[in-house]
Amino acid sequence: MATKIDPGTADFASLVEGLALKGRAAQRKLAALSSAAKADALMQSAAAIREDSAAILSANAQDVADGEARGLTGAMLDRLTLDPNRSESMASALEAVASLPDPVGDIIDSSTRPNGLEISRVRVPIGLIGIIYESRPNVTADAAALCLRSGNAALLRGGSEAAHSNRAIHAAFVRGLTASGLAPEIVQLMPTQDREAVGAMLRAAGLIDMIVPRGGKSLVERVQNDARVPVLAHLDGICHTYVHSAADPAMAREIVVNAKMRRTGICGAMETLLIDVRFTAAADLVRALLDAGCEVRGDLRAQSLNTQVVSANDSDWGTEYLGAVVSVAIVDGLDAAMAHIARHSSNHTEAIITDDPGAAERFLAEVDSAIVMHNASTQFADGGEFGLGAEIGIATGRLHARGPVALEGLTTYKWQVRGSGQARP
Amino acid sequence: MATKIDPGTADFASLVEGLALKGRAAQRKLAALSSAAKADALMQSAAAIREDSAAILSANAQDVADGEARGLTGAMLDRLTLDPNRSESMASALEAVASLPDPVGDIIDSSTRPNGLEISRVRVPIGLIGIIYESRPNVTADAAALCLRSGNAALLRGGSEAAHSNRAIHAAFVRGLTASGLAPEIVQLMPTQDREAVGAMLRAAGLIDMIVPRGGKSLVERVQNDARVPVLAHLDGICHTYVHSAADPAMAREIVVNAKMRRTGICGAMETLLIDVRFTAAADLVRALLDAGCEVRGDLRAQSLNTQVVSANDSDWGTEYLGAVVSVAIVDGLDAAMAHIARHSSNHTEAIITDDPGAAERFLAEVDSAIVMHNASTQFADGGEFGLGAEIGIATGRLHARGPVALEGLTTYKWQVRGSGQARP
Repeated sequence: MATKIDPGTADFASLVEGLALKGRAAQRKLAALSSAAKADALMQSAAAIREDSAAILSANAQDVADGEARGLTGAMLDRLTLDPNRSESMASALEAVASLPDPVGDIIDSSTRPNGLEISRVRVPIGLIGIIYESRPNVTADAAALCLRSGNAALLRGGSEAAHSNRAIHAAFVRGLTASGLAPEIVQLMPTQDREAVGAMLRAAGLIDMIVPRGGKSLVERVQNDARVPVLAHLDGICHTYVHSAADPAMAREIVVNAKMRRTGICGAMETLLIDVRFTAAADLVRALLDAGCEVRGDLRAQSLNTQVVSANDSDWGTEYLGAVVSVAIVDGLDAAMAHIARHSSNHTEAIITDDPGAAERFLAEVDSAIVMHNASTQFADGGEFGLGAEIGIATGRLHARGPVALEGLTTYKWQVRGSGQARP
Repeated sequence: MATKIDPGTADFASLVEGLALKGRAAQRKLAALSSAAKADALMQSAAAIREDSAAILSANAQDVADGEARGLTGAMLDRLTLDPNRSESMASALEAVASLPDPVGDIIDSSTRPNGLEISRVRVPIGLIGIIYESRPNVTADAAALCLRSGNAALLRGGSEAAHSNRAIHAAFVRGLTASGLAPEIVQLMPTQDREAVGAMLRAAGLIDMIVPRGGKSLVERVQNDARVPVLAHLDGICHTYVHSAADPAMAREIVVNAKMRRTGICGAMETLLIDVRFTAAADLVRALLDAGCEVRGDLRAQSLNTQVVSANDSDWGTEYLGAVVSVAIVDGLDAAMAHIARHSSNHTEAIITDDPGAAERFLAEVDSAIVMHNASTQFADGGEFGLGAEIGIATGRLHARGPVALEGLTTYKWQVRGSGQARP
């Protein structure tokens, strides 16, 4: 287990403040570094993770043994467990992030005013990013790498179940930083697993600039409810696919089965299927889902399509199953589909399947979700698939960044004004 | 005075929820309107304000009389008072906003993935914006116009001292909306002046998408401290001008006097002057400020420049005077100037005066403020001066929008994905 601060003397606010001030001081120097220097640090960290592979796997074996003894579920143990392949993937992911274009210094726009002032908006790092995560130890390296590439310092707080793994990965990462001449305080790992320390991070407004939670719904919910620091996250991925009357039946079948069943545990998986009452191959769609091993819960009209469809209750329309279950409603046209989505969606990803371009464009314009799709599987909702190279997470909030968030979402901008002696009249 | 809800039965959370749900419903229709339709509504509202000018001025006269009876200061009464010119300015400001480019629908970027998916980011409105303001009744029209132009609904909460004026302006604005066929719920005015109602707005996370406070420091401080809704604001404008050793003396004198004295009460006014110890005309700079009627508070070295310089104490370096007072420190070079700024700045606007391009570029790159300037007066820190046409405010936070915030800052984006049947492998 991780070092515990004596609860009798614990002052987690001071602990977080101290770490944050160190991180912010290191970040100010990082912000001025070249893209090449940041890439070099990531390459050194990747090499250090490869060198330390045995130590990382040994630390991880201890976490897994502890987890088994504590009765963690198979899915949790799978997320926790590293093997030589996963360790190598962690190192090569750092190299991939090193090769991503650096957004810092990009000029967003510029203009010259009539008085001669040259005004430009330039991308700069945000500052200090807090990452609160659980289970998957690779987040230690992945999140730190995205923060570093975009010029930000990171304060990491992993789950207690992965404490040994996280410390071993963090130690290797930091050795890479120092080998390339960077300050170790650029990536700091919280030295305690006490739950109260997370609370102190969430309240550290002005010290931590943004918090990204990575984990299950209860973690995200706690972070969103308690944080005074801005949070970039999504709580649910209740994604809908609407099969319009003018959908191609074969395309609809392939996309619907893929959207639900390719991987049922990801946030972009379809949870509700809306079938237009005028779509003629509705029974085929339902049969394809049943044949793929999916439980189908339907409204009355959907139940009439197949005797294996069980009755959906009110809560089904707002449930993220994250498993081989789907809710199916028959809807009376595009407006009814969009009304259902407006009521039940978590504003993550919704898709329409249709060969009618007018219906498609209305859906893309009017459905108010971070990602809207036409004739594609909701499982594409992913920063890598969008060409962002990697993602720190997917956000369903409306400010700062929305949908898949990668390096650009970890930056802000400043206004640079170049004059030649202008005073304001 | 405004209608008071009986405190015994007041349920401000329900009041805000009801108004917010109406505003959100109206906004969903507004989001789909063309740029021309929104511009037409603003033109109609401008016409209605002109038609109602007498009623607005009469309501305002009542507020001014109430304010005089309650002993408001001259500055507050000046901010409160409308006259025919100011009323006409309000109407023409709406016409100016109507003519600004509409950011909604702009494509931020787009790409085609190897699998054929076409992915684009498209600007969309944020949703419902809360505006909490005081004194100046023109904010009722200005803020509503910027929200409407960018497709957002607004929930306005003006100060009790301007309650009659705000109601009259709001009534005219809404008559313009309905004349052009838009829902009156797009711009709603809180029907109570009870202070608790502001608290209910600040806690309305998920109902109000963003809050913009417009007013004095105590208002902004309360909003920032209590809000669970994201806030776009600046608390202080402690703006610095650094006169480098290689500054042109005449340019430095003109800019420094302008930055401090053109208008002392705006957030972009210079509050602290940093003079490089190797700048040879330091005494001239101080004399020019004194001659312009400015009180000068200096550190020991600045006091040696002129006997009229009084001693600055520690709190002066962190004070926004908003008046004819300046604090002056002599600094030992660029790094010392940037260290002073890093310690005391409110991250609003800082300027360097120099003919050395290397020093200027280091300052522009390394000073971490929303606006950084070279050879220009900090009084240019203004959305209009930056070519944005108007501004809802200036933000010193690091997320979403920074510096002057206009129409673009009132939008977010969605990802539109256009496929041809892609399922994810």
